[in-house]
Amino acid sequence: MNDHPKHYCGLFGVFGVPNASYLIYLGLYALQHRGEESCGIVTSDGEELSIHKDMGLVSDVFNDENLRLLKGDRGIGHVRYSTTGSSLVKNAQPLFVDYLGNSLAVAHNGNLVNSSSLRKELERTGSIFQTTCDSEVIVHLMARSSSRNVVTKLKSALKKIKGAYSLVLLTEKELIGVRDPEGFRPLCLGKKGESWCLASETCAFDLIEAKFVREVEPGEIVVITDKGLTSARFAARAKRNSCCIFEHIYFARPDSIIFGETVHLVRQKLGETLAKEHPVDADYVIPIPDSGTSAALGFSHASGIPLEWGAIRNHYVGRTFIQPHQKIRDLGVKVKINILREVVAGKKVVIVDDSIVRGTTSRIRVKNFRAAGAREVHMRISCPPHRFPCFYGIDFPSPDELIANRYSVNEIRDYLGVDSLGYLSLEGMLSAVKMPAHKYCVSCWVGKYPFKGAGTLKNVLEKKCVCQRIEIKEG
Amino acid sequence: MNDHPKHYCGLFGVFGVPNASYLIYLGLYALQHRGEESCGIVTSDGEELSIHKDMGLVSDVFNDENLRLLKGDRGIGHVRYSTTGSSLVKNAQPLFVDYLGNSLAVAHNGNLVNSSSLRKELERTGSIFQTTCDSEVIVHLMARSSSRNVVTKLKSALKKIKGAYSLVLLTEKELIGVRDPEGFRPLCLGKKGESWCLASETCAFDLIEAKFVREVEPGEIVVITDKGLTSARFAARAKRNSCCIFEHIYFARPDSIIFGETVHLVRQKLGETLAKEHPVDADYVIPIPDSGTSAALGFSHASGIPLEWGAIRNHYVGRTFIQPHQKIRDLGVKVKINILREVVAGKKVVIVDDSIVRGTTSRIRVKNFRAAGAREVHMRISCPPHRFPCFYGIDFPSPDELIANRYSVNEIRDYLGVDSLGYLSLEGMLSAVKMPAHKYCVSCWVGKYPFKGAGTLKNVLEKKCVCQRIEIKEG
Amino acid sequence: MNDHPKHYCGLFGVFGVPNASYLIYLGLYALQHRGEESCGIVTSDGEELSIHKDMGLVSDVFNDENLRLLKGDRGIGHVRYSTTGSSLVKNAQPLFVDYLGNSLAVAHNGNLVNSSSLRKELERTGSIFQTTCDSEVIVHLMARSSSRNVVTKLKSALKKIKGAYSLVLLTEKELIGVRDPEGFRPLCLGKKGESWCLASETCAFDLIEAKFVREVEPGEIVVITDKGLTSARFAARAKRNSCCIFEHIYFARPDSIIFGETVHLVRQKLGETLAKEHPVDADYVIPIPDSGTSAALGFSHASGIPLEWGAIRNHYVGRTFIQPHQKIRDLGVKVKINILREVVAGKKVVIVDDSIVRGTTSRIRVKNFRAAGAREVHMRISCPPHRFPCFYGIDFPSPDELIANRYSVNEIRDYLGVDSLGYLSLEGMLSAVKMPAHKYCVSCWVGKYPFKGAGTLKNVLEKKCVCQRIEIKEG
Amino acid sequence: MNDHPKHYCGLFGVFGVPNASYLIYLGLYALQHRGEESCGIVTSDGEELSIHKDMGLVSDVFNDENLRLLKGDRGIGHVRYSTTGSSLVKNAQPLFVDYLGNSLAVAHNGNLVNSSSLRKELERTGSIFQTTCDSEVIVHLMARSSSRNVVTKLKSALKKIKGAYSLVLLTEKELIGVRDPEGFRPLCLGKKGESWCLASETCAFDLIEAKFVREVEPGEIVVITDKGLTSARFAARAKRNSCCIFEHIYFARPDSIIFGETVHLVRQKLGETLAKEHPVDADYVIPIPDSGTSAALGFSHASGIPLEWGAIRNHYVGRTFIQPHQKIRDLGVKVKINILREVVAGKKVVIVDDSIVRGTTSRIRVKNFRAAGAREVHMRISCPPHRFPCFYGIDFPSPDELIANRYSVNEIRDYLGVDSLGYLSLEGMLSAVKMPAHKYCVSCWVGKYPFKGAGTLKNVLEKKCVCQRIEIKEG
Repeated sequence: MNDHPKHYCGLFGVFGVPNASYLIYLGLYALQHRGEESCGIVTSDGEELSIHKDMGLVSDVFNDENLRLLKGDRGIGHVRYSTTGSSLVKNAQPLFVDYLGNSLAVAHNGNLVNSSSLRKELERTGSIFQTTCDSEVIVHLMARSSSRNVVTKLKSALKKIKGAYSLVLLTEKELIGVRDPEGFRPLCLGKKGESWCLASETCAFDLIEAKFVREVEPGEIVVITDKGLTSARFAARAKRNSCCIFEHIYFARPDSIIFGETVHLVRQKLGETLAKEHPVDADYVIPIPDSGTSAALGFSHASGIPLEWGAIRNHYVGRTFIQPHQKIRDLGVKVKINILREVVAGKKVVIVDDSIVRGTTSRIRVKNFRAAGAREVHMRISCPPHRFPCFYGIDFPSPDELIANRYSVNEIRDYLGVDSLGYLSLEGMLSAVKMPAHKYCVSCWVGKYPFKGAGTLKNVLEKKCVCQRIEIKEG
Repeated sequence: MNDHPKHYCGLFGVFGVPNASYLIYLGLYALQHRGEESCGIVTSDGEELSIHKDMGLVSDVFNDENLRLLKGDRGIGHVRYSTTGSSLVKNAQPLFVDYLGNSLAVAHNGNLVNSSSLRKELERTGSIFQTTCDSEVIVHLMARSSSRNVVTKLKSALKKIKGAYSLVLLTEKELIGVRDPEGFRPLCLGKKGESWCLASETCAFDLIEAKFVREVEPGEIVVITDKGLTSARFAARAKRNSCCIFEHIYFARPDSIIFGETVHLVRQKLGETLAKEHPVDADYVIPIPDSGTSAALGFSHASGIPLEWGAIRNHYVGRTFIQPHQKIRDLGVKVKINILREVVAGKKVVIVDDSIVRGTTSRIRVKNFRAAGAREVHMRISCPPHRFPCFYGIDFPSPDELIANRYSVNEIRDYLGVDSLGYLSLEGMLSAVKMPAHKYCVSCWVGKYPFKGAGTLKNVLEKKCVCQRIEIKEG
Repeated sequence: MNDHPKHYCGLFGVFGVPNASYLIYLGLYALQHRGEESCGIVTSDGEELSIHKDMGLVSDVFNDENLRLLKGDRGIGHVRYSTTGSSLVKNAQPLFVDYLGNSLAVAHNGNLVNSSSLRKELERTGSIFQTTCDSEVIVHLMARSSSRNVVTKLKSALKKIKGAYSLVLLTEKELIGVRDPEGFRPLCLGKKGESWCLASETCAFDLIEAKFVREVEPGEIVVITDKGLTSARFAARAKRNSCCIFEHIYFARPDSIIFGETVHLVRQKLGETLAKEHPVDADYVIPIPDSGTSAALGFSHASGIPLEWGAIRNHYVGRTFIQPHQKIRDLGVKVKINILREVVAGKKVVIVDDSIVRGTTSRIRVKNFRAAGAREVHMRISCPPHRFPCFYGIDFPSPDELIANRYSVNEIRDYLGVDSLGYLSLEGMLSAVKMPAHKYCVSCWVGKYPFKGAGTLKNVLEKKCVCQRIEIKEG
Repeated sequence: MNDHPKHYCGLFGVFGVPNASYLIYLGLYALQHRGEESCGIVTSDGEELSIHKDMGLVSDVFNDENLRLLKGDRGIGHVRYSTTGSSLVKNAQPLFVDYLGNSLAVAHNGNLVNSSSLRKELERTGSIFQTTCDSEVIVHLMARSSSRNVVTKLKSALKKIKGAYSLVLLTEKELIGVRDPEGFRPLCLGKKGESWCLASETCAFDLIEAKFVREVEPGEIVVITDKGLTSARFAARAKRNSCCIFEHIYFARPDSIIFGETVHLVRQKLGETLAKEHPVDADYVIPIPDSGTSAALGFSHASGIPLEWGAIRNHYVGRTFIQPHQKIRDLGVKVKINILREVVAGKKVVIVDDSIVRGTTSRIRVKNFRAAGAREVHMRISCPPHRFPCFYGIDFPSPDELIANRYSVNEIRDYLGVDSLGYLSLEGMLSAVKMPAHKYCVSCWVGKYPFKGAGTLKNVLEKKCVCQRIEIKEG
């Protein structure tokens, strides 16, 4: 039961709107790409909390009937992706507990790096955990606080946890938003009329016609009640931060504003820079939809090579696709994207994608381009090679399985079977975003981790395949 | 019980592969866009037929367990969309019947125009129908034939039915494909190794690594058995045909070859022609994803106006989206596509889409572009205005609800609130496809219908809102 | 697909009460013992029929929601038991068909002996069957009738079918009850206020506070409409009948009046006669609950031996009991009835049961009595030994499996391991009921069957194990 | 969230048999009458615990598939009934928790009287509860113990709880049985071959062919491991006990041995005594099945009045019976038991039942006897009038709703409409059992409660309708 899962999640919260559950449902719909495995909503009518959560997409889990039963004018919601071992309903969020006649719900995006040791200590002194989520330690630390005030309890808990966490919390009377001092994961503050909202990404505000106000700052805690919003800091403002730049490369929706910039425009700029760093002579720029679409447009603009739809995505493919025989495994990749023979046959194409993880999918895709008759296949990737695990909420495979951890770019090129391969440089990537480099976390490319002494490259490499279990100790 | 539903469906069949059900499952996955409401598979092991069908997407209805129970090396599959009234499991296809110790399964894409009178006559003489599908008359007509040979039975039935029908049929020993004499709906013949396949669109062949051989011809019947394929005609080859050109405009996947041409390339050409017919001064060409994407690329190439992603689609939105209050209805449109403020603000944009039906969705979308700050909004549509119903398998709203049936282009422009509106001309549309004009059905634009004397404009307009119930009588 | 199932079923119908579905639900609850496998209700509001049916007990299949959707003041219901092979939802009754804009529902108790040949003929001329029920031929025969009047259609169909059938039918306007000319299965007519009811057993009338009026007569058809009840005969009144006496022995509830007599009182009399025919010296009379309870009371009264509860039934045991290993099979018998050690230890007991079919269960039960310390175990059975199959609606095992078909009473006694075994004589059984012997069917004991030339002992024994498939031809 | 539910439950445990889950399933089947609302099984294979529990009957909740997944040779099971408010899956037992890498499962029969204050104290110091069951405090008290030994932890917890509790617990290595010092609820020890079993009633041993060894004593804890059974006391052996005599009157199955006596024989003796205390001149003794059946037999023997089946029970009636209209409410009572008109008409009958709670059901039943034509109706009850609530695990209605709390016997007689009414006296009841009076709890008849100062009659009556919420404080 040590499989404290890494999270890759989306958060939403709202206070002071009629039938809050329906707005939260919409917000989660907009954030669905951040977690397809389970989802949940908790609402409050000022007196009592109501909850509904289950495995599945937002459209599968919620219906008019259960949304109607989620009464009240305030609430929080969560969409979640997690690794296989812990795909259990009991781990779906928001977490919900009753104690001393009060209720508390918590939703978490990120990953704590000291949750195992905290949990062990809490259990040793009598706490009983209900889930295998790292997030649950926050609730128990709050329950242990002797204060009767929920914000004081929360601050006392935040003092003990380390790692990446954007949180939304709900009590009968309060909606609370928290962003960790490093600012790994985004959390945005919006306003719909007089009502405050919180969301992982601003695309959720667009949908519900709320206005994006600002990000919750790293180390800030915002508390929204009937009397309005109050803000406090639980950690001093720092010069350096650790905003996850991979949100811009891959996670976030192109129509969201993250860390102050529109994602699509950042991606377009990544594509432009990529075209400059790795020029190529080709007939067409072909995006791998949907993740490579924005960068491909930038690449086309900067290179002058015309964009073409050479790879068509089947939008019905979800997680439940059945692959009965080894023989059909390649079909499993093909079912997602079909190559347009009439477009690519006899042409030199440059395909643009956001990243390469294991390399197996890209390799099959290249084979498919060749089979469709492409004369030359060049590949351009809009970030540097991924060589290290992430401990802050992204569920990369273990270092052993990351192709760039074990092979050089030329070796990868040969493995994929492309005529040329170009990764965007670290400098190129950082030049495409507005904030200075020390505001971003780039650990998964460079192997240096935000917490002092913890998870250095050496430590990480000594414990191979540790992504699931590593406990990062402070120096 | 007079709601004989119009069909908009996808067909697949295969003969002579191990575990045929898994290949059919893949085929239906590729054809999912042709029908999201229900789906079904029937297989045969040479002795006995097995069936599984239900309401829902292919990924929801099928799993490893029920695919394994669908035994045999041959089978057919169906995906289906239908109008609300008849969304019943019993209407899901393939239809399946036992009689005299034999079994027969039938799947149908299209719509019969004389099914009501045939059904009435059959019931009058003792037949009992199990569904409200027009397709069921085919089965009863076959059962009434005195022949013991299933192909003879089928031919005898085909003599009596009129309208649009591509069919795949399965008996214990035979896989049969049929395309109506007018050729309204596509049906393609493929080969995977030594095994024959049938599919509505060639994208299904790409996925399973089958090769596209040719289309089943209008008026042709192909019979596949252990001994191979035999072809016969049940109607003479005609000079004129009625291939549904709207398959190219909207229905088919861009990566399919339909009526001899790749859909994406046709759409690109439609976009190019549109740019020439309705030039505009704009900063960006913005496609409405996904239906307008190919035409927008053609428009951009022909006009020299750069393509931009200004409208981002949420790919999780399915049919089950909940719209609880009138107030959120506009959100219902917005949830599908979000406008990228930072891209369109202050710009002159031309948005490219495939068609306008009621106009209500387009109107909201234009409003959203304006709200996002667009300086000018121009709209270009890659086909002529839709003014008439379809009786051959497309479920358009009644004429009254088709905006172009009641208003002029200028009135529509004002209703939508665009700065300019351009529809592709009939001639422009027909110039973008390879076959001569008399090979295509363009009834929904011109109001003249393939069957003599039937469904003339006058007849249609006299019976308002008749799309669901009209019975076209021969002259 | 030749498994035309034997039925053992219960029928209910009512006309002219508000919310008829709820009364029918109650009626089926009272008749649940006649069929635990599936159940269904069809109602009419005078304009339209509504249906709900499924596998399972009445309490599992129906709830407030689906009962509310069954609108109207009239309707019919059915509970069904059938052999394993045909335990399919599609075979659940009432059967329901639409034709020529009208609807018809039919529920059947009994078994037709010429359904296979009728079905083959109907299929040969174009009818398509929806189920594997023998009952469906009735519907097709009605559909073939050229009359427009439903009663005329029905009479035309009844002329062609042979065998056992009590029927209730429902159209938009009519509730119809039919009993076959031999009168195999019961069908009772009742009145609740001014409203007519039909039920297989009178216990259903007691529950809904209706009054038992009379039985529907063999060969009678009753038609209930807004104008009241009309009766007609479709077969002449006969001297001889074939009322199934096993309804009294085992099927019917003790609180029902069947063929003019209260079942409990008949059973008590069977027990008294049994005590006289097979006296025994014992300490206690012990009933096997619940089927042997009434006869045991009669046995106790007549013999003067005190009744005792020595066998306790677990009323929670249903059909879904899991028997994972051969080793637990005997537990499977024990789970139903536990022997009360403190009562039987050291005693001479006589156990009274209604019948012995295969003998395997009885044998285990006797072992259990011995294990509980019984000094002597005597067994008394309240009918003669079962030696022949039933073709009229009781699903006995094939003759080979009937223990009395292959062994003498002494051999059975030894197999069961009892100290003595006594079966009631045929004469004794017939003396316990009021009507003369020629009014009852006793085929399963004597092997002579009601239809001339059909199913004689010789025919039956030549085709061993034929219970499922035999087609009885007329001479 | 203060609805700590009262329990009325059944327990089973076994150690050292292959596929323990199947035996536990059988055990729960035999104990189903002790709790029809939810059930659950936890097993251990020595390394890991597996759990399955849900709302519903044992036959609905368990199937071959989930029993197979419950791996191991040891385990515990639970059936549960509870009051409406807390009928939640999360309250189903066994309770299951993980902490410090170990697992623990607990199943409880009884009711704690100080759980509210214990819970409040635990929550105040940081414990988070998962259910609203009073039983959960035991788990938290164990988690708070600093010992690493589970038995020490358990003893430490038992020191703090008060009330009625028979418990079975399971860890990876141990099966534990506990009975509270007062001995309110039964708990029996059995042996199947070399394997130990625990069960609430011995009928579960009969079914699985285990031998009843002895009861677990009040204040005893038995621990069963690979090394065998060890017994310890956690409370001194007391002169007085509080065995719930209502187990004999109503709860337990007639074929169980409870507190040293076979239930059926005790009930028979209660009936005999009742006949002597309240003789009557009648034609028939009629049992109300099934609860009154044994007492009726005793009444018949002692009085010489013949037993007759005048009330027939419908064994299909479960908890889900639908009562749509006030008008059908009486039918709701009738659906359970039908009166046999032909037996009772014109007769003087004495009906024997186990108890009267609210009186509403009995009243309707008497009306039904009158309607069936009974000339005189006498009622005899095999225990004294129930006037007070139970705090030890029986969910009686609040005192206000107990008819005997507000009315005299004569008033009740008039309310019920019987010709005479006789309750067994307290002395009569106690004379029918073997142990001396001070070994039994008779609080619900006399209003004096086992815990000093707690729940005196005065306290109870001051807080009306308090059965759900009362917290009994120690004096």
